[in-house]
Amino acid sequence: MNNIDPALIKKIVEEIYKRLESCNDEIPVGVSNRHIHISREDLDVLFGKGYELTKLNDLKQPGQYSAKETVKIIGPKGEFDKVRILGPVRNQTQLELALTDGFKLGVTPEIRESGKLDGSAGIIIEGPKGRVKKDYGAIAALRHIHMPPSFAEEHGIKDKDFVDVVCEGIRKTIFSNVLVRVSDQFVLEMHVDTDEANASGLKTGDTVKIIKSKE
Amino acid sequence: MNNIDPALIKKIVEEIYKRLESCNDEIPVGVSNRHIHISREDLDVLFGKGYELTKLNDLKQPGQYSAKETVKIIGPKGEFDKVRILGPVRNQTQLELALTDGFKLGVTPEIRESGKLDGSAGIIIEGPKGRVKKDYGAIAALRHIHMPPSFAEEHGIKDKDFVDVVCEGIRKTIFSNVLVRVSDQFVLEMHVDTDEANASGLKTGDTVKIIKSKE
Repeated sequence: MNNIDPALIKKIVEEIYKRLESCNDEIPVGVSNRHIHISREDLDVLFGKGYELTKLNDLKQPGQYSAKETVKIIGPKGEFDKVRILGPVRNQTQLELALTDGFKLGVTPEIRESGKLDGSAGIIIEGPKGRVKKDYGAIAALRHIHMPPSFAEEHGIKDKDFVDVVCEGIRKTIFSNVLVRVSDQFVLEMHVDTDEANASGLKTGDTVKIIKSKE
Repeated sequence: MNNIDPALIKKIVEEIYKRLESCNDEIPVGVSNRHIHISREDLDVLFGKGYELTKLNDLKQPGQYSAKETVKIIGPKGEFDKVRILGPVRNQTQLELALTDGFKLGVTPEIRESGKLDGSAGIIIEGPKGRVKKDYGAIAALRHIHMPPSFAEEHGIKDKDFVDVVCEGIRKTIFSNVLVRVSDQFVLEMHVDTDEANASGLKTGDTVKIIKSKE
């Protein structure tokens, strides 16, 4: 134990300090209840040709909003009457559920990044003007952080990195495998679903910290 | 940086090895769906004087079992038709919910250790022979590990310690503040509720590891 290389120790200490520094910034949390993004084509069937969504509230991410419109979601074992549509319309219809919701509906949503829907669970959607049977599109969203480039650069994080995030409290939890998406269109915010929020005691507006980033 | 004390480094390395060693043992997980423990007095009202629960299945913890009998749970906003009773009868009636269940019922179960019910949420229970209105008794169980003394000693853990537990997978999660209860009546098992299981991807029979213990 007498041949310690001081240069190595210095490097380790520097690394520790670097990581401690990157702990300093708090990330606000948004808890996502079950919701749906709708394609133009499906909106036409559900609400009528050319129907336009009505904005209820702006979401934190620029351009995103909750719509006044809701749809019924029907699964093999159960249904949800009023699932909120988030606008604007997207290329693909995507239903985001907590796994707990999946048990009620009788579907098993896979844990997926937004937009990666191939082979995901199917579902029936009912609107005031019609029904759509989707062969895929129901997922449990992979927990993720929307991050502006300034924050990412400061913390040595790149788009599509995965990070570990700690939330304090009686149900203190460290979430690993949190996907980071970096864009100048984003406001800093971590999205978790209701299962993750309830398991860790998180509420919308709470903050968490990144404790480790890895590629 | 040239005055590193080799004895200190040795101590740190030994501590790291000690912690690595204590990582070796896997703890089986049991996911608790919402359920209820009933007092003799309440069972009399719900099912009739002197009624005895019928065993459906033995649970992993010795002497504990799921009963054939279920009750209806009624909250201000919603209800659950068939909530399983776990036997045998206890000193106090205790309803264990996930926070997600609380939203449906319209009650806010506090996160509590089993048996610590003072000031917890109230609830109405309905059985085939009557109704009981409880002023308290609905909790979200503090996640915990049932641990036999041999495992505890081997890992330097005492009754009522709190530990950190890691579960691997796409939703890799480290749960902090996990209560340990040590007794020679216990079989090694970690209990989490459905929110915690869904947030981390855990299923009954999966295993987790303790990565840090603290008093």
